[in-house]
Amino acid sequence: MDVSTVNTLPYEDFVNIFGNVVEKCPLIAAAVWSSRPFLSLSTLETAISEFIDALPDSGKEGILRCHPDLAGRDLQSGTLTRDSLEEQAGAGMDALSSAEATRMARLNEGYKQRFGFPFVICARMNDKEDILRQLSARRHNDCAVERARGIEEVKKICRLRLQALLADASNKL
Amino acid sequence: MDVSTVNTLPYEDFVNIFGNVVEKCPLIAAAVWSSRPFLSLSTLETAISEFIDALPDSGKEGILRCHPDLAGRDLQSGTLTRDSLEEQAGAGMDALSSAEATRMARLNEGYKQRFGFPFVICARMNDKEDILRQLSARRHNDCAVERARGIEEVKKICRLRLQALLADASNKL
Repeated sequence: MDVSTVNTLPYEDFVNIFGNVVEKCPLIAAAVWSSRPFLSLSTLETAISEFIDALPDSGKEGILRCHPDLAGRDLQSGTLTRDSLEEQAGAGMDALSSAEATRMARLNEGYKQRFGFPFVICARMNDKEDILRQLSARRHNDCAVERARGIEEVKKICRLRLQALLADASNKL
Repeated sequence: MDVSTVNTLPYEDFVNIFGNVVEKCPLIAAAVWSSRPFLSLSTLETAISEFIDALPDSGKEGILRCHPDLAGRDLQSGTLTRDSLEEQAGAGMDALSSAEATRMARLNEGYKQRFGFPFVICARMNDKEDILRQLSARRHNDCAVERARGIEEVKKICRLRLQALLADASNKL
C-alpha cells in the first residue's frame, strides 16, 4: 500500500487499518486522519508522533496505561490484541520458565506501584533477557524519565506496526 | 460506588470500568486517572471534559471518528459496543422502517462526506424523530460548529455512562 492509496481511505477504513498502531488508542489514528494528504509514509508516522508529543503528561501516561503487562494477565487469559500477542510471543514472553515468570510478575508489579503505569518496551527489538534486564534497571528511574522512555518505546512499536500494516494492508480493505 | 472507592482503584480496574465512557477512547479514562484523588464524582466528569477540551481540533475530530453511525453498519453487523447498542436501541435505531433506514443512511453519508466525521448525538436524550430532525438540520452547519456540537454530545453521553457505571460498577470489580 503506497501513500497515495492511504490518502484516499475514508476515515472508517483508515481507523480500521491503523487504529491499533498505538495500542488500544484508535483516537490517535482517527485524529491524524485530519492531516491528510500525507506526503510520504514517514509523514504519517511523524503526524502520530507529533500528536502524542502535544498531549499533556496525563495523556502520555494514559497511552502507557492502555498497554498490557509483558507476560501478564492478558497474555495468560488470551485477551491480548493480536498485535501484542505476536510481539510478546516473538520475544518469548509466552514461554517463560516458572522462575522467569515469577520474576517478571514481581518486577512488573513493583514498576506499576512506583509509576502508576506499566513498563512498556518494544518487544520486537528485544529478547527475553534484554526485557528482564531493562525492566530491572528502568524501575529505578524518575517518573518523568520513565514516562518519556515509555513513550519512546510506544513510538518504536508504532513504527513497526505501521511498516507491517503497509506491507499487507491491501488484504484488509 | 462512591468517590472514595473510585479513588482507591488501581489504573487497570479504573480503565476496565470507565474506559468506554468516551466511546472507544480508553486513553481518556486512562489519562484522567492521573488526576486522582477526585473530590467528588462530578470532578471526575470535569477532568474528562477538561482533557477533551485541551485536545487540538484533530483530537476532537478523532474522538468523533471513534463513534459508530446511528443505525449504521455496526448496528446491523452486531459489532457495536454494549453501551452504544443499548443507547441506539433505546432511541429506536434498531427498529426503523425501511424508509426511515434509507433516509438515515443517506443523511449519515452526506454528513460524513461534508465533515469527515460522523453525526454524534446523545441517543438517550432523543427519540427517533428528534435524531432524524437534528441530523437533517445540523448537516448544514459549518465544520467548526459541528465539531464543537459533536463534542458537546460526547460529553452528554459520557455523563450518562458515568452515572450508570457508578450505580452498578461494584458488580464489575
